[in-house]
Amino acid sequence: MALKLTGTPKSSCTLKVLLTLAEKGISNYEFIDIDLMKGEQKVPSHLAKQLFGVVLILEDGEISLYESRAICRYLARKYDNVGTPLLPDLSNLTKMGYFEQWASVEMAILMLITGEPKNEELVHSLLATLAQKLDVYDGAILAKQKYMAGDTFTLVDIFYMPLMSYMFRMGFGHMITDRANVKAWGRVYKNNFPFNAIRLTKLDFLLPSRIKIFALKPVRLEHCNN
Amino acid sequence: MALKLTGTPKSSCTLKVLLTLAEKGISNYEFIDIDLMKGEQKVPSHLAKQLFGVVLILEDGEISLYESRAICRYLARKYDNVGTPLLPDLSNLTKMGYFEQWASVEMAILMLITGEPKNEELVHSLLATLAQKLDVYDGAILAKQKYMAGDTFTLVDIFYMPLMSYMFRMGFGHMITDRANVKAWGRVYKNNFPFNAIRLTKLDFLLPSRIKIFALKPVRLEHCNN
Repeated sequence: MALKLTGTPKSSCTLKVLLTLAEKGISNYEFIDIDLMKGEQKVPSHLAKQLFGVVLILEDGEISLYESRAICRYLARKYDNVGTPLLPDLSNLTKMGYFEQWASVEMAILMLITGEPKNEELVHSLLATLAQKLDVYDGAILAKQKYMAGDTFTLVDIFYMPLMSYMFRMGFGHMITDRANVKAWGRVYKNNFPFNAIRLTKLDFLLPSRIKIFALKPVRLEHCNN
Repeated sequence: MALKLTGTPKSSCTLKVLLTLAEKGISNYEFIDIDLMKGEQKVPSHLAKQLFGVVLILEDGEISLYESRAICRYLARKYDNVGTPLLPDLSNLTKMGYFEQWASVEMAILMLITGEPKNEELVHSLLATLAQKLDVYDGAILAKQKYMAGDTFTLVDIFYMPLMSYMFRMGFGHMITDRANVKAWGRVYKNNFPFNAIRLTKLDFLLPSRIKIFALKPVRLEHCNN
């Protein structure tokens, strides 16, 4: 039975999973594109599978999973022997330790970007903190390692991708491009992206000819934390 | 060489690691208690190991790790064969899939509690969202499974512990105790907690005789996201 993915390419979480499938060269999946504007993620049949009423669900036979990072990890393990390797050697305690460290750093920085700031003062405060964090990425992390979890491309790079694109959409792309190593990481990502493997035409806004580094063209992108 | 943990029991992230060590029955570690008020987490020798200047570092020979959840995962794997099992069978794709889903749910709810709300309106908005999430925990998750990641106790339960305690400290303990299944989960946690294994006397505020469910006595608790 083919994988069934319920989501929308407008959601950053769905993008993470689509990018993972693309890296793995998996195109044999059914994609159920739900309409957030119509509240299709809140109907009982969806809520039965996604208890919190957010968009993303992966079904694989009897398995029904949500949370984008968990789905990406599941896919990376299930298809361990095809496409781009996206996880370190699971039996290597040290490598897994650092992988989990960097995966956790990504979740922590996400909190700065996707909270619910409702006033300008708070937004400025969050942006100042984010700038400090990006300085660490630029000066200490990506100055020493090529990718976000070490010297090889992993799921953690994929986890950042929609987020970084989102920053361009929000008008903060300069926070990426002003930092040479962060900018270089974005370029490496873009150049390695397996564009041919992507079958969903809605993903074409990620194509390099349309973007500067990884900025998206102006389409409405729903960001979610899950 | 013994493990070396740098942190402070006042930090929720440090508590997660101490709880993990306790569950594993590991007492052969050196604990470096740093003073946040003196800014000891910002000195160059600390920053060399913790790039973001937050408190927690685990050193194990050549390995130097940060991020509390990554450290807990590392310890749970390293000491896989002793103490409480805290991870599902790593070779079981399905079990790992669900474990990662629940671990990710914990990170997502954390964002609601530990943002930087600076005005009352925002706090009320976050609390309303948190109440909705807790209703899902109570009515749909913990009504069907005993623990936060399924029917066995895992690291995910440990990840919630300091956070839940923190809610009591902030005066929102009723959000836990008003929900029967969430409250019951707290009791199960408390009753299974391996108190005897804890060697740090500062941790005594977690002892059951001093707490109602898992409320802490009023000491200043530094919360951190890492």
